[in-house]
This record gives sequence, structure tokens and C-alpha cells, in this order.
Amino acid sequence: MNLKIVILAAGQGTRMKSKIPKVLHKVLDKPMLDHVMEAAQVVTNNKPIVVIGHMSDMVREHLGDKAEIALQEEQLGTGHAVMMAEHYIDDEDEVLILCGDTPLIKGETLKEMTKIKSEGYAAVVMSAVEDDPTGYGRIIRDGSNDFMRIREQKDASEEEKAIKEINAGMYIIDGKLLKENLSKLSVNNAQREYYLTDVLEHIKNAGHRIGVYQADKMEIMGVNSRLQLSEAERIMRLDVNKMHMANGVTLIDTNSTYIDKNVKIGRDTIIYPNCHIKGNSVIGEDCIIRENTTIEDSHIEDHVTIKSSTILSSKVGARTTIGPYAYLRPKTVLGEDVKIGDFVEVKNAEIGNGSKASHLSYIGDAIVGKNVNIGCGVVFVNYDGKNKFKSIVEDNAFIGSNSNLVAPVTVKEGGYIATGSTVTVDVPEGALCVARAREVIKEGWRTKKGL
Amino acid sequence: MNLKIVILAAGQGTRMKSKIPKVLHKVLDKPMLDHVMEAAQVVTNNKPIVVIGHMSDMVREHLGDKAEIALQEEQLGTGHAVMMAEHYIDDEDEVLILCGDTPLIKGETLKEMTKIKSEGYAAVVMSAVEDDPTGYGRIIRDGSNDFMRIREQKDASEEEKAIKEINAGMYIIDGKLLKENLSKLSVNNAQREYYLTDVLEHIKNAGHRIGVYQADKMEIMGVNSRLQLSEAERIMRLDVNKMHMANGVTLIDTNSTYIDKNVKIGRDTIIYPNCHIKGNSVIGEDCIIRENTTIEDSHIEDHVTIKSSTILSSKVGARTTIGPYAYLRPKTVLGEDVKIGDFVEVKNAEIGNGSKASHLSYIGDAIVGKNVNIGCGVVFVNYDGKNKFKSIVEDNAFIGSNSNLVAPVTVKEGGYIATGSTVTVDVPEGALCVARAREVIKEGWRTKKGL
Amino acid sequence: MNLKIVILAAGQGTRMKSKIPKVLHKVLDKPMLDHVMEAAQVVTNNKPIVVIGHMSDMVREHLGDKAEIALQEEQLGTGHAVMMAEHYIDDEDEVLILCGDTPLIKGETLKEMTKIKSEGYAAVVMSAVEDDPTGYGRIIRDGSNDFMRIREQKDASEEEKAIKEINAGMYIIDGKLLKENLSKLSVNNAQREYYLTDVLEHIKNAGHRIGVYQADKMEIMGVNSRLQLSEAERIMRLDVNKMHMANGVTLIDTNSTYIDKNVKIGRDTIIYPNCHIKGNSVIGEDCIIRENTTIEDSHIEDHVTIKSSTILSSKVGARTTIGPYAYLRPKTVLGEDVKIGDFVEVKNAEIGNGSKASHLSYIGDAIVGKNVNIGCGVVFVNYDGKNKFKSIVEDNAFIGSNSNLVAPVTVKEGGYIATGSTVTVDVPEGALCVARAREVIKEGWRTKKGL
Repeated sequence: MNLKIVILAAGQGTRMKSKIPKVLHKVLDKPMLDHVMEAAQVVTNNKPIVVIGHMSDMVREHLGDKAEIALQEEQLGTGHAVMMAEHYIDDEDEVLILCGDTPLIKGETLKEMTKIKSEGYAAVVMSAVEDDPTGYGRIIRDGSNDFMRIREQKDASEEEKAIKEINAGMYIIDGKLLKENLSKLSVNNAQREYYLTDVLEHIKNAGHRIGVYQADKMEIMGVNSRLQLSEAERIMRLDVNKMHMANGVTLIDTNSTYIDKNVKIGRDTIIYPNCHIKGNSVIGEDCIIRENTTIEDSHIEDHVTIKSSTILSSKVGARTTIGPYAYLRPKTVLGEDVKIGDFVEVKNAEIGNGSKASHLSYIGDAIVGKNVNIGCGVVFVNYDGKNKFKSIVEDNAFIGSNSNLVAPVTVKEGGYIATGSTVTVDVPEGALCVARAREVIKEGWRTKKGL
Repeated sequence: MNLKIVILAAGQGTRMKSKIPKVLHKVLDKPMLDHVMEAAQVVTNNKPIVVIGHMSDMVREHLGDKAEIALQEEQLGTGHAVMMAEHYIDDEDEVLILCGDTPLIKGETLKEMTKIKSEGYAAVVMSAVEDDPTGYGRIIRDGSNDFMRIREQKDASEEEKAIKEINAGMYIIDGKLLKENLSKLSVNNAQREYYLTDVLEHIKNAGHRIGVYQADKMEIMGVNSRLQLSEAERIMRLDVNKMHMANGVTLIDTNSTYIDKNVKIGRDTIIYPNCHIKGNSVIGEDCIIRENTTIEDSHIEDHVTIKSSTILSSKVGARTTIGPYAYLRPKTVLGEDVKIGDFVEVKNAEIGNGSKASHLSYIGDAIVGKNVNIGCGVVFVNYDGKNKFKSIVEDNAFIGSNSNLVAPVTVKEGGYIATGSTVTVDVPEGALCVARAREVIKEGWRTKKGL
Repeated sequence: MNLKIVILAAGQGTRMKSKIPKVLHKVLDKPMLDHVMEAAQVVTNNKPIVVIGHMSDMVREHLGDKAEIALQEEQLGTGHAVMMAEHYIDDEDEVLILCGDTPLIKGETLKEMTKIKSEGYAAVVMSAVEDDPTGYGRIIRDGSNDFMRIREQKDASEEEKAIKEINAGMYIIDGKLLKENLSKLSVNNAQREYYLTDVLEHIKNAGHRIGVYQADKMEIMGVNSRLQLSEAERIMRLDVNKMHMANGVTLIDTNSTYIDKNVKIGRDTIIYPNCHIKGNSVIGEDCIIRENTTIEDSHIEDHVTIKSSTILSSKVGARTTIGPYAYLRPKTVLGEDVKIGDFVEVKNAEIGNGSKASHLSYIGDAIVGKNVNIGCGVVFVNYDGKNKFKSIVEDNAFIGSNSNLVAPVTVKEGGYIATGSTVTVDVPEGALCVARAREVIKEGWRTKKGL
């Protein structure tokens, strides 16, 4: 059978008090809707069908061609939402219905649920056990311990209110039965809405078996406010952190370490508090990532030490040390055993093995060779107010402090720039380039000037 | 009736082990006493009467003219403390007695308490329910569920010890009855102290009705140690953070976000962990405040992005980006679409729309126009060792890297400073100013020098 | 009697998934094994005997001459491990057996345990009460409430399983009895291991009294995974933080303050969140350590303010202010009332009272006098590509912005370096040194160049 995914993402999320739709709010820097779609990818390669409504343009734009879109112009209940997606569903499909605001749902959980479905059920309802089920629809089971019905809070007897197993709002339903029964839904109820849960009762009443799959209550948590959003963030953060610890990474403070879901980290790397490792970053083994470091979409090799620095879309070779207070901007490629020290910015530059820029420098749009020493306060002047140019510094060159390399310029192998020189011409191999005025001493000047 | 506030702030706070008086220790960067005074302002405009004692000079100096002062030279109990304030109290007043070391008490709570008082009670006692009431005075209620008496731990029967409702130490009492009964207090007890609680018993025994107002136990928490101080800080911090989240602000980690009480933040602004937003800062909508940013007493407009920077008493225009590692010192005024990049300090300077200082620069005491490009390593030299001077850079100027503008100097519209120039004269409109030596190349120098 | 310490440190720690032995993993930046050895030092000056096995070379190298080494080549149980240490034990010794992976054990606890031992017991077993004792060996007591036996989980009756007092795996045993009974151990059991607990049963069965010392369950926590390592870190961190708070230090956020065990901090110092104070640092009274500051092995005097900076192996005089974003590298010695501002690095330099380096400078290998003003962008050029040299700046000198002092160079008392000068010669007392080209203005240049 073919599994189709329908994700309900049309809700307004009034309590978010936001100008962007609820399902685009982020957990670990990724929209909630994307987390749900990622979980769905574990069980099928079919494009999910996303039902959008409130602020639909923003959701549509975000989704691009990653999903089929079903527009729900009026919000007339969950049953109505699924009706909007009906034309994507064939009779022989199975349909997994998910919620766009439950970012913690895991693909493995959905896989388990599909297994239950395959045990001869016409549908499977996901449930969870809540300590305080007040307000939720309760799962009523039949004599075979299968699904009987969902009882909403307001309709529940005292006995039913005591049931702690609740409806998680996620279902797998045979396509044909789903479509047949959606058409039977009516708005003859207090809210004047089409209820998806009525579909289940119709199917059950028609004599089909419906299973219940009990999930962890954490995973089914719906996010309706920024407070819940921060709670989902906290849970997912700890989950990711525990995974890395189990793999052999030391985290000094699990509560203050912020690692995105797709990051990879090697064994025996130690991560100090308040580090943020984001996007698709890959960190090697035996690295030391000291406090207050932010790494985004970067590749860090083994035995690298980074202190209190920011690294964006860069590559860092083995045994290189960075920081504190360094800033690597995109397209930085550092070799091995490089040192980038404090208050140094590197941007769109390759720096060869063993080279050093220890302090207060800017290396932008450059190719720097091996064993180059870049002094303090050096500026690679890459911009004339209109265009950007590139400079080349060959192996073993020495760039004196507070000097400027005005691009395009080449310092050949072993070239030596004297402190305080502004260099606008190429410097030959092994040559000294000096560009500065000789000192003039004026004795007694200070007293005379009264400074 | 007229409400007078008496705040007891004479205690020593021995367990704080401090050289400053307990009530001046801070929660969210504001002395505990000030938090209590702020809560009191919700119920009356009358100046509070603060009873001071230990290290009274420091408290007096702190209060200035924000309060009436009553000096309690000897600490002879809570009754004695209130006696010191008696001359500020008229018979027709109602007196709200508060503690200077309960920083979590809320103005709304005090307002509710005054409402109870207005229901025909001669006094109202604030209570709270503690899971473990050991050590606290228990509230004994009468047949009408009104206040009967307070039973101290040491005097309590087993039955009374089981009572979990405790005396919070805050009261509203009719001025006349308070004064009459204070005069009846004696020190005939083990501690040789005047007990304020005896006043309540005298009033009750004289046949007056005394009400009980039950508050949240969090709010009445007294701070007697640094551990309790940190607990109060934590509670108030979460309280403030929840308020912002309810208003539509995303906080990535509520436990590591530090926002002072008076800060305002617009909807859909996202605040990353370990940010400190202090004083009277105002942050607009749709801002992104990345990790490790400190903002004090500053005004940030909409759509601003700030990364790992420190901003003090500054204004930042819409869509401007700052950092990482930038430092805005007081009297910085940035326009819209400005870029202040890494390792840049701005101080007492206006920078116009669309201007950029991307790295490693110092802009102090300056007026910078629109669309100005300030290169890397530029210094606005504002100090000659004795005086400070101001520089002006007009629209569209270009200040080359590692150049110095020695104030006072003006770079006219479109003026262009060549890399590495020290400028001590005004630069005309559209002119180039270059001040540097020509390069001298010495071939074979390095080998000769053996460097 | 003479107390010998045996620390079991041969285990593999498979769940750590590490290339270094478990006992060398760190808590508060110190190997777990060292924490255990420090606790042991409270009860004896004898060198501990450490039983090593897995990755023994690394443990041996770490220990150096701080311990006697007993090598356990095969891991045949705890009894076998102690056998390896037998030749260090004399009959008249008492032997305290500890675990190398319980970093939270306190010296005071061991002292209490030795006191019990001295009450006529042949041995004392450390126990603790666990809410969920499943999996642990239970302590069975005899009629006198003394130790009877240890019952392992798998052998326990239902009644015994209900016992919550468990064996902590630490013991004091008379040397003679220990050695006699170790020789009686056999591997006639399911695991084919020598069990140390069997020694206790033999001693008991021979009619000797064995005491039980109940410790806090926190202290006996063994670390077998990175998750447990982070939990031990958290517990020890809070323990240290509470100690400082009790001593009169304000910590704004106890959960995000990271202080190593040996650090000393004076009263009324305030430490903001996310500070890391490491090694043997000593902080004075009334200091303000603002957020994101890292201090390692440094001595900070009273009334110092430090903001978002990194300080390594340095000394900082009273009332000095540092940061934000300053970096003091080893061998920095700052006087009193010094100011080191943003983006300033100091290394191996003395700076006298009242001197200032406010921004964007590097002061390396230097002696700087009193009341010196070091402008913005100044570089102490200490390296020529081959050697490092030292510079001297005497009292009251003024070093203009973006100037370079090319070491070795001396600026005499009151010497004045003009902005943008590169100085390679000594500057006499009160003299001006200027080294720069005069400005050339080219009118209309910009339009002509089209920039």
C-alpha cells in the first residue's frame, strides 16, 4: 500500500501573537512544520500534503516544491481540513494525518504506528497518557482493547474523565474509508465544525477494527504559545545533547549547550557551556570548543581548539587554534596547525598550513600560503569603494604589523613587509618592502605644547 | 481613607555576610527595597516610610527623597520598628506594613489586600500556605474564618503545628488602632522584643474583625542569604520572561535570558540565550538578538539584528546590523540600515543611514553622514592627551583602511581618504587625501638579514 | 594505626566511548581520579595506591609520582584488583578502598567513616540510601544494626529487594584481615571473578564486627557515561557555588556560573551569568565580574570590574577595569586604576598604575609605566619573524593612535608619539616623535576615478 501524509497546518495560533504563521515558528532553528515533515520522511518518500490556511502565502512560499499544497480557506474543523486534501488521496492509499505544530514527533514513532496499522486495522489512532488529561479527548477502548471511540471532555462521564489516555490527534486511515466517511460528516454540532474524529466513529460503527498506538506524551506536545515553543525547544535540545553524549562527546553543561539536529560531532570532543553549533556543522574528534563559541554550517577537523569565537560556513583544518574573539566569515578555509588569534576576522580566504594571524587583523578575499606570519593590525584592503579585489601572499612571507596590503597585490614567497607599510605593488621573492616616513624627534615639544 | 506604607528595612541580614545592608542587595539589578517600593506605588502615591537601622547611612543615601525615613537605632522587634514610624501616621490613616526583604511581592497583590481591608475589617493579615511551615507563625482562624491569632512555632500545639497557613509578616491596620495598641506593647517575653503580632491580638481581643488575605507563597519569600537572593532572582527572571513570551516574543532559552523588569520588547523579536537586556531598554519588533548580547538603557528600532555585542545608552535605527563583537558606548546614535561589524567601537557619535564600519575601527566623538564607508582599522583620533575633539565625515565619504582622522577634522561630501593616511587637515568635497610614503623594495633583503 | 588508600581505577568505562581512560575524564576541569585523591588527602598523607588496568599508560603518566601504582593486567573483579595492591599493605595498616570514578566523595565523609572504624570495628562498609535500589547490592544488617552481609540483586529475596540501603563500594578494612581473606577468594561464581565483598563476609563470619557508615547518595555516585559525567559536574558546580554564596559572594545565576574547586572569592563580589573562573584564581572583595568572563589561574585584587573578557595567568590591581572583549594573556601584570578596554590584548607585560589602553591595541613583551595613555590601534611590535624583543614606555608617555613601537625601543618619561608613527628609535624625555608623510590633496579625484 501507498502511504500519503496529510499535515494540518492551517491554524491561526492566536496565542503566539505573531505576524508569522504558527507552524513556521522555529525549534532548534528549524520551522516546526519542517520537523514534522522530516519525521514523515522516515515512513514514506511521498511528498506530504500540507493543508494551509491562515497566512497561507507565507507557508506556501516556505514549502516551495517540498510539499503538495491544499488550501483551506475557511477553518471549519479538522474534518474539513482533511477534505481539502482529498483530491490527493487515492482509494488504495493509507493516509497518515499529522499536525504541523507537534515538532517533537519522531519518525521512529510513526514507523511503529504504521506497523500496528499493518496488523489488519482499518485505522490507527495515536494516543498518549497524560497525568492531567483535562480538556483532551479521551480514548475509549473496546473489549478487545482496540479503539472504540473518542470522548471529548465536555461529553465525558465521571468515569470517562478518569481515563488518562488521550487522543494525540494523529491517525492512519485507509484512503477509501477516509474519503467515504469524510463525505458523511456534518456540522450538526455546537461548534458548527466538521470533526475528523467522527470519521473514526463511522468506520468503527461500520464494523472495521481500529487500533490504538500509544506514544510518549512528550512527542505529541502541541505548541500553541511561545512558552510551549520554548518548552519544545528545551526538550529537543536535551534530546540532541543526550544523543551526542551517548556517542562519546563531553558536554560540560547540557542545559546550556545548543546544538542543531543535523550536527555531527566526533568522539572525545569537549564542548563548554553556551556554545551554539548550528546548521549542518561537522566537528571532528578530540576538539575543544570553549565557552561562547558559535559555529554555523562549518566543517571542523580533529584536534581543533576554538575559544569564544564565531565561525560561519568555513572549513578549519586539524590542530588549528582559533580565538578567543575571532570571527571567521563564509568561505574561510584554514589549513592545519593554523593560528587565528583574538580580534581577527577572516572572510573568503584560504590560509595555508602553519600560518598565523595572532591579533587584530582582517584577512579578506585572499590566498595566504604556508607558514606566513601576519602581524598585528594588518589589513587586507580588498575594497576601493566600488570593487573588491583579491590578494595573494605566498609561503613563508612576513607581513609586518599595522601594514596594509592594497588588493590586488602579491607578496611572493618569503617577501617581508615592514611594520606600518601600505603596499600597493607586488613584492618579489625574499624582498623587503618598506613604505614609511623616517622618525623626526622634536625635543622639549611636550612642555612647549602643554600636552 | 488614606493609605500609608511602612517598610521595615532595619534588619542586619547577618547571613548575607555583606558590607552593604541587606535591603540594598539587588534582584534583577534593582535593590530589593526598590522592588517593594514599586509594588507599594500601585496602591498609593504617598511616599513610603522606611524604617532603617543597620548601616542606615547607606540606606538613607540610597533613598534620597524617595521615602520618609524613620530611624530605628536599636533593633527591639517588629513592634518597635513600627513605633519609630508612628509620627508619620495619622489616626484616620490605614497603614500597610511591608518588609524590605521580600522583593517578589506584587502591587496587584497589595491591591487585592486593600480590597479585603475595605470589607469592614480593622486590619488584614497577609498569609500564605507553605508545604513545610516549620518555624513560621501559624494563622489561627476563628469561627467566621477570620483571623483569630498568630501562633509561633515554639508555642504551637501539635494540632496547630499541622496548620500550613503562615503569617507573611505584611499587614494593613487602621492607624488609630495601630497607634493605640503599639503603646500597649511590652518586652515581657523571652526575646525581650516588642512584637507587632501582639498588636493584632489586642485589636482582635477588643472585638474588632481582622481579615486574612492569602497570597502566593512565592511572593512573600523573604531573602536572608545569597542563596535566597539567587532564588528570588530566578523567580523574578522567569516571571519577566513569561510576560514577554505571552506578549509575542520568542526566547530560545528562558532559563538563560536575563531581562530587567522595565524593559519593553516588540512582537516577533527573537532573543537567543545568554542575552542581558537591562535598565530601560526598548527593543522593537522583528529584531534578532543573538546570543551573548548585552543591551543597557538603549532604544533599538524594528528589524535590527545584533550578534554577541554590548550596547550601552545608545539608539539603533531600523534594519541596522551590529556585531558580532561590537561595542556601542553611550551617546551612540545609529541611523537605519547601518552596519557596525566586528571589533568596532562607537562612542558619542551619530552615524547616518546606510553607513558601514565593518571591522576593527573606533569612531568616537564624531558625526558621520549617510552611505559613508569606514574601512578596517580606522581610528577617529579624538584625544591629544589633554582635550577631546570632534570630527565630521559627510555623506558618501570613503575612509580608507588603517587611516586616522585626527580631530578636529572634516571630510566633506564624497571625500576619499587613501589607505594608511593620517589626516590632520580638512578634505574638500570629492577630493582624495593621501598621506603616505612610497614603497621601497630591497631585493634579497631577507636572506641577507637572516630573518 | 596507619591508613593506606587503595583506589580502584582499572575499569574500562566502555559506555564513555572514549580514547582516554574513564578515571581521567574531568569534572570541574579536574580528572575524577584527582578528586578522589584529594578527598583521600583529608584522611592521610600516605600516597594512595592506585590500581590501574585499561589504558594504564595514560593513567600512569597522569599520576607521575603522586601515587603508588598497582597494575591489574586482567580485570578479574574487585577482589582481584585489591590483590594487585597487596604488597603495599602491611598487617598493621588500615586500608581505605575507594573508587576512581566517584568524583563527588568528600574528604569530610571519609573522615567520618574512619571515626566509625575506630569504634572497635574490623571493617566499615560505606552505604547509602537509594530511592530505587534496583541493581545495587543491598546492605543486610545484623541484630546490633551492624553489617551482616551484602546481598546482590540477583540473589535477593523479595524482602531483601525492598531494602533501600545499598553498598557504596567503599570500605575500610584492617590490613591483616584484608590480606588473609583476599587469599581465600575464589572465582567459583557465575562471573568467574574475585569479589571483594566476599572478604567482608569472611571477616564477619570469623566473628569480627563490621560497621556501616551511611553516606549521602550524591557522594557515592559512580560515573559510567558522559551523561553521568555531566550530572556529576552539575552537582559539584552547585556545591561550589553554594559555598561561595554562603561566604558572601553574589551569583546572579547559580546554574550558569562555573567556578573550579580551588578558586577563592572575596565578600560582596558579584558574578554575573556565564562566567568561568578556573584553576587557582583568587578574586578580591567588591569586584564586579560581568557576564561571559573567563578567568584562569589569575589574581584579581579588590574593586576590579571585568566585562566579557578572558584573563589567563595574570595579575590585576585594585580598581582596575577591563573589557568588554579584552584578552589578558599569561604574565600580564596590571597595576591599580588601570583601564584595559575593548579589543585590547596584553601579553607578558607590566602596566603601571593609572595607565590606559582603551581600545584595539596589542601590548606584548613590554614594561609600561604609570599614567601612560596608549591610543587606539597601537601595536607593540615584538617579533621580527625570528626573535622577540621587549619595549619600555616610561611614566606619563602618550602613544598616539595606530602607531607602532618596534621593539626593542624605549619611550622615555613623558615621550609623545604622534598618531600613525612607526617608531624604531628611542624617544627622549618629553620629546615628540613623528614619522609620517604629509597629506596631499587631489581635488576632483573621486569623480575622475569614478569611485
